[in-house]
Order: sequence, then structure tokens, then C-alpha cells
Amino acid sequence: MDAHKQLTIGLFGFGVVGEGLFKILQQTPSLKASIKKVCIKHPGKKRDAPDELFTTDKNILLNDPDINVIVEVINESEPAFEIVSTALKNGKEVVSASKKMIAEHLPELLGLQKQTGLSFLYEAAACASIPVIRNLEEYYDNDLLHSIKAIVNGSTNFILTKMFEEKLDFQQALLLAQQLGFAESDPSLDVEGFDAVNKWTFLLTHAYGIIEQPDNIVFTGIQNIQGSDAAVAAEKHFDIKLVAQAKKLQNGKVAAFVLPQFIRHDDHLAFVKNEYNGVVIESGFADKQFFYGKGAGSFPTASAVLSDLSALRYQYKYEYKKLYHHTPHELTNDFYVKVYISFDDWSYVPKDRFEWIEEWHAENDRKYLVGVLAFEELRKNSWWRENNTSLILAPETIIEDVEIRKLKKKSLELAGIV
Amino acid sequence: MDAHKQLTIGLFGFGVVGEGLFKILQQTPSLKASIKKVCIKHPGKKRDAPDELFTTDKNILLNDPDINVIVEVINESEPAFEIVSTALKNGKEVVSASKKMIAEHLPELLGLQKQTGLSFLYEAAACASIPVIRNLEEYYDNDLLHSIKAIVNGSTNFILTKMFEEKLDFQQALLLAQQLGFAESDPSLDVEGFDAVNKWTFLLTHAYGIIEQPDNIVFTGIQNIQGSDAAVAAEKHFDIKLVAQAKKLQNGKVAAFVLPQFIRHDDHLAFVKNEYNGVVIESGFADKQFFYGKGAGSFPTASAVLSDLSALRYQYKYEYKKLYHHTPHELTNDFYVKVYISFDDWSYVPKDRFEWIEEWHAENDRKYLVGVLAFEELRKNSWWRENNTSLILAPETIIEDVEIRKLKKKSLELAGIV
Repeated sequence: MDAHKQLTIGLFGFGVVGEGLFKILQQTPSLKASIKKVCIKHPGKKRDAPDELFTTDKNILLNDPDINVIVEVINESEPAFEIVSTALKNGKEVVSASKKMIAEHLPELLGLQKQTGLSFLYEAAACASIPVIRNLEEYYDNDLLHSIKAIVNGSTNFILTKMFEEKLDFQQALLLAQQLGFAESDPSLDVEGFDAVNKWTFLLTHAYGIIEQPDNIVFTGIQNIQGSDAAVAAEKHFDIKLVAQAKKLQNGKVAAFVLPQFIRHDDHLAFVKNEYNGVVIESGFADKQFFYGKGAGSFPTASAVLSDLSALRYQYKYEYKKLYHHTPHELTNDFYVKVYISFDDWSYVPKDRFEWIEEWHAENDRKYLVGVLAFEELRKNSWWRENNTSLILAPETIIEDVEIRKLKKKSLELAGIV
Repeated sequence: MDAHKQLTIGLFGFGVVGEGLFKILQQTPSLKASIKKVCIKHPGKKRDAPDELFTTDKNILLNDPDINVIVEVINESEPAFEIVSTALKNGKEVVSASKKMIAEHLPELLGLQKQTGLSFLYEAAACASIPVIRNLEEYYDNDLLHSIKAIVNGSTNFILTKMFEEKLDFQQALLLAQQLGFAESDPSLDVEGFDAVNKWTFLLTHAYGIIEQPDNIVFTGIQNIQGSDAAVAAEKHFDIKLVAQAKKLQNGKVAAFVLPQFIRHDDHLAFVKNEYNGVVIESGFADKQFFYGKGAGSFPTASAVLSDLSALRYQYKYEYKKLYHHTPHELTNDFYVKVYISFDDWSYVPKDRFEWIEEWHAENDRKYLVGVLAFEELRKNSWWRENNTSLILAPETIIEDVEIRKLKKKSLELAGIV
């Protein structure tokens, strides 16, 4: 008995990931997978592969009955969706690495999977070499996943690491990231958190059965973080990381966001430096798990595509267990967060909207405070990311609704205010 | 299209893991898996489950045509093998957590899998909640796995952590481990490295296609490690861990062993404390990956069994790719190791068998040296683990055959000897 089928691949995209995959497949004959045709945008470019492999006509791949798998690793979201949805409709299984496309089109993609019964796998779209989707699908059941927090963007993590370890300022660190190829020439997708929230959107589906558009999830990036923030963090023995997180609250709903956070040195995520990614999962049964690996780059991403191809050979497909086999969780904004906020002028910060303020420091040009805000305030308003204002979550940031009165009283007592 | 079959389970063993699994399955109806019958050894014991679930007759499970999956989580190796092999011959798929049994009977078990075409999964047998086997099977191809090193035994890691962090001596730390349930009342299986080398035996099969009996792999445990060793380590800014490792050498063969090792504080494994396990994999494409989680205990182990059950639903089976689809690697003893050795008396240490000695310290009751040995010396002789002598590998311990002359010359020059 051998369930393995020969995979004949139509590949879209021959950038760093596509070319990496091509090279890896040449070195792994055991996979019984071969690339029949590659669809590219710019035929003129010099490529390290035979000319007859390439075409600019997507239909040659999508309509070829020999091709049973489409691998899509292009950069643009809408053409990627067009390719993926046509491929599924044409009876082909699909492997994709397009996080933005998946984040924005997940409902349609779920529908197409249901309708066609075909596999659509995208381990490469989040954390590349870390098998996070597969683990969320296979290891955790709905009731048991207490929380998940992760560093899902290598570019911003590289920049923050350099700001801390080499005391570079943001612009210097960004430049270095670009020189080393860890950030795009237009880095805003990474730096401002768009890439991270895209990944978080579908990881929330696998973790909790939540389906949301990325712009319904509160997020920002690291664009406003200052050298002075890094200095405050160092003084408090914290790192700063851009953390995507989700936590099941006592009311059964889920708090989820992508925001910079102070991280204690003994936190697993403090371990994740430079361009690496890391995922910490807390659950009822497996307890605490930590996965760490390269989250981007040609070969790490291609190796994730390879693992999806390998899974296709035994008809693996995502079951979206938390969505289909359970009552999916709901997102909530009904909780509070403890935050550090630094800013250039007091007028940018609506002090009266804080539940309480524990610290304020006005002695330098760059001022900061530590206080507690209703999360709804972050969702509804944007003063906290405008005017060069920088928000960083406290290490244990989430305060549940049921605890807020007690904590407020205790905090004000400590401050000698009541 | 839905390939999912109902799993009707016959469970062998209702100790901490078996009972954990029973509880978890009750909480995860989505798995469509139910335990029909449980075979136990001692019918008299009070158990938190209906009486009619239990039997002491293994054949009631093994011959029940309704039961399509046998889950085996008993402690004894030979009865476990009897159960597993009969189950496979009777057409049932099998999930097991018996590391010793798997290590000792892997060739027969491979034969039975080939012969029957049935799945035999055992993710729970190594590192419990860390999906290490699945990752080795799915993510790495033969040529690409440079090295794997791991902490695979939680008991010894707990003891070492307490020796370091709380300055306990070995006996105190062991007692604490026993009190907390992290070590058996007869702890020698853990402490002397038997458990670790058993796990390493079959992980080497999944990593490199190597099939060896556990007693052909050089190993020891932490039984001879002294408080003074911990003090030397602390002085050098190292931790001590019991590390299972394998590395592909330049000659294409694999060096593999389970031995205590000095670990730098920035090494991934330094992060693994107390009863946790960790695995670091270096490969050509995915680069460096690190997996961390609970390696033992009722629920972590049961959660790994659960993930195997989940995989059975889509007919997943190990492919042993490195064994069947490639030329399997061979173990070699043809390399050198840099070691620290502490001992009570010089007469216990054959100094002339060292390639060279870099340090010697005879000033205290407990003496030590740092030197380089042919690995063959460790394989052939056992002075290094007798007479209370303690061997700890240096951080970059492996010296390949091709490098030894150059390194020896350099080292002796540095010491002012030549």
C-alpha cells in the first residue's frame, strides 16, 4: 500500500523563494515532485534554469491537465488570489506563501476548499521554517489553547535587536536590515505591522476559529519606537519586541492584537533575536511549547513549501477544527491593557482617557507615562500611534474586565492616592 | 470528500499517561475517537472510570474486530512489543509511547510496518509534547540535516538545573525530582542515560536512517557529576546538560552519542531548564530550528498520543525517508572529542591515551583536566565513567579526523610545548 502520488507542479513566481524551491526540489528526488512549468512576469530576466521552463501565460499552467499542484509564491495579493482560486476550481491542489492574500481572502478560500474538497496549504505564509499552522491544527483542541504569542516578522525583530544590542537608532537599524536583505526597499509593510497582522489573521483562524479582516485587529509596528524607549526598557531589564498575541479570557472570548511589548529577559520571546521568529503556545495539556526558527528568506520559506508538498502526498489538508468542529471563539475588545507611552508633547496624549496612570516622566524632551487603558480606546482612536507617539505594552499587559476595579484600587493605594 | 474514519481504541495501560489520554479524549469529541476497552495489569486498583471499561485479558482487545487502533502506554518493554506486534499482525494501527521497546525492537517493527502497510506512530516516545519525529520526517531531507542536538530526558535536566540554580548537590536534587514526580523511585534509567539513549536510537533512524542497538551508541548519564563540576562550569560561564547529539561529518558519516556537555549561556539548549526538553536542528534549508516543550508527564505525553491519533485519521504513516529513499548514513567512531574529566585520583585516568591535555588542576581533592581523546577510546573503554570519574564534553567537542593534526599543533604551540 502506497498512497503517494507523483506531484507535477506549476510554479508561479521565480523570485528568491521560487528559485529556492526549484533548487531544493532538484536536491530532493525522494519527494517525487517535479516542476513542469514556471509562470513569471518579466521574461527578459536572466534566470538560472532552462528557458523552456518559463512562460508568462498563467493559463498554460492552470489549464494543463498534467499539473496537479499549483505552487504560488508571487508578491502581489490580487493576482495571487486569482491564481489560487482558479487552480482550485480547475481541480488542482495549491500551496501558497502569500500571507496578505490569504489574510484578505480567507472566507472565499475556505469556501473554495469546502466546495472542491482539495487541499490548500500555506505553512510558508507564517513563520516560514516553523511549522506553526500544522501544530495549531494537530496539537491543540479548542478548549485547551490558553494563549499564543509570537514574533512573526523577522525584519522588525532584526531592527529592534540592533537598536538594543548595538544601540543603533531606528533609521540606522532599518538601513542595515535593508543592506542585509531583511527588509524591502519600501519597508512600511514590515515596519508598520501590516505583514505581522496579516499572518496573525489566519493564525487566529487555526488557533481559535476566528475569522476577521486584518484591519479589524488592533495593530501597529515599530515605526515610532525611539532610542529613548530602548533606554527605558534596558533600565527596567526588558527587551522590546513586536508581539502578535491572542489569549482566551475568563469570559471565553479572545483578546488578540499585534503591538510592541516590553519582554522580560527570561521570557521565551527574549530569546528570539535578529531575523528569527518564535512562537510560544500555552495549552491545557501540552503545557508550554516554544518553536523557534527562521521566519523568512529563500530557503527557510522554500523548505516550508516543501513540507506542504510532502504533506500533499498523503492527502493532508487543514481541517480548521476550531472553526468547523467547535463553536468558534469570538474576538473581544472588552478588556484593559497596561501600556507605556512615550511622546514629544503632553497635548498629544488624552490623559483623562486612562483608567489610571502609574508613572509619569516629564523631565526630558521625550516624555513617557505608564498607565492602564480600555482596549476599546486603542481600537477606536489612533492618537497612540500618531504624532510620533510610541505605545509599548507592559509585560503582563492584559487586565480582564472582572479584575479592573480591584487592580485600580490596589494601584492607587500603592501610589498613595486613596 | 472526507477521509476521516472513526477510531475505536483498545488502550493498554491506565497509569498517568493512559488516564491522561482517557480524560483528554473525553474533552475532545471532535477527534471521533473513543476508547472501547482498557487492558490493565492490576484489576483491584481504584480507577476514575467505569469498571466495565477494564479487562486484564489482552486478547479481548487484540481480537476485537471493532477495535481498529491499539494505543500502548505500558511500562514494560517485552510485553509492549508483544502487544504491538500482535496488533499490527491482526490488522490494527498502533500508537505507542514505549521508548525502550521501540529502541530495542526497531528492526522487527520496521519489518512489520512494511509487511502490513499499517501505521505505527510513536511521537509520544520522544520529547512528548515536542513534535520531533514528525518534523524530522517531514522537514528534512537526507543531505540537508547538518546536526541535531537535544535534551531528551526531563528528569536529568531537572536535577542539573537544581544543582546549578539552587546549588543542591546531586543527591538532594534527585530527591527533589522524586518528590515532584519527575524521577522514578528507581531513577537509574533516567540518571544513567538509558532513557535518553533509547530515545536517541530511533530519533537517529528518523534523522539519518541509522539503525543501531542502543548499546552500540556511546552514552552515560549524570550520575558522576559533582558539585565541583558545576562550580567549574559556572566559572567558565557554562551550564551542564545531558545532551543527545548527532552530526554529519565531512566524510559523510555521522557522529552520535549521549553525554553530559558544557553549554554556553547563549546556546539554545541553555534555555531548556527544569523538566523541559529541547531540540536544536541545523539544516541546509530551514537553517536553525529550536523546539521546546514538556518532555514527560501525563498530559504532555497524552497530548502527543492524541496528535498521533489525529494523524491516523488521514492515514499518516512514517515514511522513514532517510532509510528507504536514500542511502542511509553510517555511524562512525572515527573522530575526536574535547573533554573535561574530573576524578578523585590520578590513577583512574590513563593520561597517555589523550591526544593532548590542555589543562590540569590537581590542587583540590577533586582534580580535573581538559584534553582531547579519540572517540574510539570512549567506545572501547569505560574508565571515564567508573570510579566516580565524571566526563563532560567541551562546547564544540567534535574534532574531525582531518583537523586533528593542525589543531594539536596549534594547541601545543599555545601551551608553549612545541
